[in-house]
Amino acid sequence: MQHVNKAVRAQAVEHNISVIKYGVDLGSKALSVWLADGSNFPGQLNFRQAFENTLDSLRQIYDALPNDWKIWVEYKPFEPNFYSTTVGDWGQSYLLTKKLGDKASALVDLGHHLPNTNIEQIVSLLLMENKLAGFHFNDSKYGDDDLTAGSINPYQLFLIFNELVEGMDARKMDHATDIGWMIDASHNVKDPIEDLLQSVEAIKIAYAQALLVDKAALAKARQENDVTIAQEILQKAYRTDVRPLLAEARLKAGAALNPIDLYREAGVRRQLINKRGTEGLATGL
Amino acid sequence: MQHVNKAVRAQAVEHNISVIKYGVDLGSKALSVWLADGSNFPGQLNFRQAFENTLDSLRQIYDALPNDWKIWVEYKPFEPNFYSTTVGDWGQSYLLTKKLGDKASALVDLGHHLPNTNIEQIVSLLLMENKLAGFHFNDSKYGDDDLTAGSINPYQLFLIFNELVEGMDARKMDHATDIGWMIDASHNVKDPIEDLLQSVEAIKIAYAQALLVDKAALAKARQENDVTIAQEILQKAYRTDVRPLLAEARLKAGAALNPIDLYREAGVRRQLINKRGTEGLATGL
Amino acid sequence: MQHVNKAVRAQAVEHNISVIKYGVDLGSKALSVWLADGSNFPGQLNFRQAFENTLDSLRQIYDALPNDWKIWVEYKPFEPNFYSTTVGDWGQSYLLTKKLGDKASALVDLGHHLPNTNIEQIVSLLLMENKLAGFHFNDSKYGDDDLTAGSINPYQLFLIFNELVEGMDARKMDHATDIGWMIDASHNVKDPIEDLLQSVEAIKIAYAQALLVDKAALAKARQENDVTIAQEILQKAYRTDVRPLLAEARLKAGAALNPIDLYREAGVRRQLINKRGTEGLATGL
Amino acid sequence: MQHVNKAVRAQAVEHNISVIKYGVDLGSKALSVWLADGSNFPGQLNFRQAFENTLDSLRQIYDALPNDWKIWVEYKPFEPNFYSTTVGDWGQSYLLTKKLGDKASALVDLGHHLPNTNIEQIVSLLLMENKLAGFHFNDSKYGDDDLTAGSINPYQLFLIFNELVEGMDARKMDHATDIGWMIDASHNVKDPIEDLLQSVEAIKIAYAQALLVDKAALAKARQENDVTIAQEILQKAYRTDVRPLLAEARLKAGAALNPIDLYREAGVRRQLINKRGTEGLATGL
Repeated sequence: MQHVNKAVRAQAVEHNISVIKYGVDLGSKALSVWLADGSNFPGQLNFRQAFENTLDSLRQIYDALPNDWKIWVEYKPFEPNFYSTTVGDWGQSYLLTKKLGDKASALVDLGHHLPNTNIEQIVSLLLMENKLAGFHFNDSKYGDDDLTAGSINPYQLFLIFNELVEGMDARKMDHATDIGWMIDASHNVKDPIEDLLQSVEAIKIAYAQALLVDKAALAKARQENDVTIAQEILQKAYRTDVRPLLAEARLKAGAALNPIDLYREAGVRRQLINKRGTEGLATGL
Repeated sequence: MQHVNKAVRAQAVEHNISVIKYGVDLGSKALSVWLADGSNFPGQLNFRQAFENTLDSLRQIYDALPNDWKIWVEYKPFEPNFYSTTVGDWGQSYLLTKKLGDKASALVDLGHHLPNTNIEQIVSLLLMENKLAGFHFNDSKYGDDDLTAGSINPYQLFLIFNELVEGMDARKMDHATDIGWMIDASHNVKDPIEDLLQSVEAIKIAYAQALLVDKAALAKARQENDVTIAQEILQKAYRTDVRPLLAEARLKAGAALNPIDLYREAGVRRQLINKRGTEGLATGL
Repeated sequence: MQHVNKAVRAQAVEHNISVIKYGVDLGSKALSVWLADGSNFPGQLNFRQAFENTLDSLRQIYDALPNDWKIWVEYKPFEPNFYSTTVGDWGQSYLLTKKLGDKASALVDLGHHLPNTNIEQIVSLLLMENKLAGFHFNDSKYGDDDLTAGSINPYQLFLIFNELVEGMDARKMDHATDIGWMIDASHNVKDPIEDLLQSVEAIKIAYAQALLVDKAALAKARQENDVTIAQEILQKAYRTDVRPLLAEARLKAGAALNPIDLYREAGVRRQLINKRGTEGLATGL
Repeated sequence: MQHVNKAVRAQAVEHNISVIKYGVDLGSKALSVWLADGSNFPGQLNFRQAFENTLDSLRQIYDALPNDWKIWVEYKPFEPNFYSTTVGDWGQSYLLTKKLGDKASALVDLGHHLPNTNIEQIVSLLLMENKLAGFHFNDSKYGDDDLTAGSINPYQLFLIFNELVEGMDARKMDHATDIGWMIDASHNVKDPIEDLLQSVEAIKIAYAQALLVDKAALAKARQENDVTIAQEILQKAYRTDVRPLLAEARLKAGAALNPIDLYREAGVRRQLINKRGTEGLATGL
């Protein structure tokens, strides 16, 4: 969408508009855009022109959005480009979506940040500006590692949910429907379904723990600059073992107490392989 | 300026307004604001409230700015706070200065970025949005190390100047006066004046090399996606030894061919010590 | 200890030897050495010579160690030097202590690593080589932030303890006495005693959880490359809320169920201030 | 080579030994080993066992090396594994090659380091220990980006060569033959041959500049802790435009003054495509 040649940009725009049409048929309500655009070497790009071309392309797509649709603009600092990325951080996503209009907002993939980024602060600010589209959940140690959510730094996941609950409540948003919840994690050393089951459990644990935070006490501690107690309040919620609660909720919903055990005992993987064949297998039998 | 107590914020605002008054007496035209505000521990701050309090404080200062003044809002990701900083990246500076108005813009200190940040792209985008206040020049390997400009990564300094020249020319800005040029580097293992002399030389080298870039050829290479030649064009300018040119310019201006040699031979440090005494000495005799 | 001037090195060596003498009087059994030595600018140091000078200085100190003493060599990648540190990573600590002899080993400060370092792997390798001296516990998000242990990434603390328990047991080491346990964390936005109480609690939680890991099941999962179950086993221990267990252990030992509450209710801070005066206060009344 | 199953390890060892046999037929004298081994999730691996298995596998290969061969052990912190890598840093390469014996040494790929690593210091220390095998040259901004050598941070490349020249001279090593010189850089937005030509030029520039360093003056400045002058000496060499010198050397050797121009004018790419067909093309016509 940043291409120097207008015809190439037009082709990309056209492709997105046709995707919207398929989406309408499927009952979708949002177009999620992650752009690999960027550059590998100093000199390759005029950054400003790349940004303006991208904005111009996105505007044409925006104009083609049905009234009840959203467009979500994802950012990522590097890979597949290794010098610059044209939508590289939350600031660039914010700038683009602000210029586009109210249907546009920024999508946060947890693995798309430079080392040491405070992601939960970004979540809070995007909610403040009404520009948080939703999430691609995963975890990472180095870059866009796409590891199982909660497998590397589960406290960070909790802190993100703590901001989500606080910020959505402050805006009276519906937790379930007002942002997009997606998992973008899967690795070839695990069965992909087991990976998903672990990600879902980690996300639900973080959410349940965030709901346990004593908000009144936290507000009071903050008002008094009582940093020790503010930390105690968050850790009290986080240290609580909510796994029995989640298991009971699953039981009441008619689902499995222990999803991974059931998945293995029921031989679901074997059944799927028998049905689909082994050609598309990513992770061995 | 983020403090939960309104009286504390009022005190900070008042202090800034009195600084403006001194500045008027001194003939200044800009207030540069770097805020150490932030938090050290999860839970300590409500990020949104901290941001809104900061914005509110800055608005009061903004309203007290003389008509021909600017306010520059500097960002920094960490230190002295080690969990969050309330004006932590260019996106936060942009957001604040956009809400404040046209007199407000973002100040870039080269050492105030997370590892691997593409600073030159930020420079280009801030110029595009008319929100680049200027620079605190220095160099760094790890964090806000405040090392001599050009001492660690001189090519990065050149790339920043390349964006500056391109972006300022595109907006028909005056290179000398339309942004603020500051050096914020000094280290205790060097004589501070020698450090400054080396920083000034590195900055002038980078600027001269940026002026040497063949802009027409670069635009053509970009239009043709000729990445090899785009790199050649930048490196051709950067590899050029402009030190004789700068020395000749100094000579014509009645200054020293080799400033560090002159400074040492003339015994300036010794004279300053004799005049000022040794009490305030940071770096030994 | 790296200084180019032999007399300066001799002075540093002499100082360390006199420290050992005080230590003998005090009943100490180890000398802990952290060297700020390094350089701020390319060119400043000959790295090899700096290393060899440091080794030579340490050898003289090593030779002056009483028979039953240890010397612990701590590493740190940057700060207060910002280009190179002469004992900058575990490899350099290992190299020095290997050349020094069996009384020398490497001290790990959790905050002394480059971004994204896998610290628990370093712990495992140092234990394997019988070169783990012990720890400076703290937590950090950016650098040597010296935040309360467990306040930023408690899962990492657990993973470190998991390696400690496994590696010490494999070498039949005594958990309590065979390595040095130290907390090096204290921040000016918390009462230092409360900071310590929180650090101790976080460390004990991590240790208790590490003891809960089902080692036989983990060994089996690893042998079968069952990555999903290996993660489940670690998370099962980590998600367990061991706070009641620790409180009960405190109660049985005649200590407080909730140390921070007791500390506040008993007005210990006020008593200490009355006794010591306010001059040395770091963190306000 | 770390696999829990001995038979799998034996297969990997066997493969390496058969590679050595092919190498003997081809006239090679070194086996270069980069191991993707590691883990993606906490719990997956016993780090110590993985290291010991790897050492055991390498020992068997080492024993099969012809007398006049070397084995080079490359390290890399992450990718394709995203939690741990079993040979992850220079310390792990050093430990393995020290245990293996004198034929083993550590291979440095410039892109295989955590953010902010001081690579030139590692080069100096490995030379000191007689454990530097050689290089995979490339450049990077984020990770193992495999960009053209000298395209991102040419001063770092110079600093590495400065340590190489100093350290090899100190050990009276032959610059050309006593370590392995390799380029491991190629990107799909450039013609691979042009990428190589640019890498070779950058490497030769860095080497020529390193040879220009006034070693006696540098030693004197270091002895006097004259940090300003030490920096001046390095920058004086680095700022020198050695491109005419390299072009003249090429001319005298019967090669092209400007290799990229010649390559393009002679239509070499077109000829190669005609000869080899377009099936294997990585980068478009």
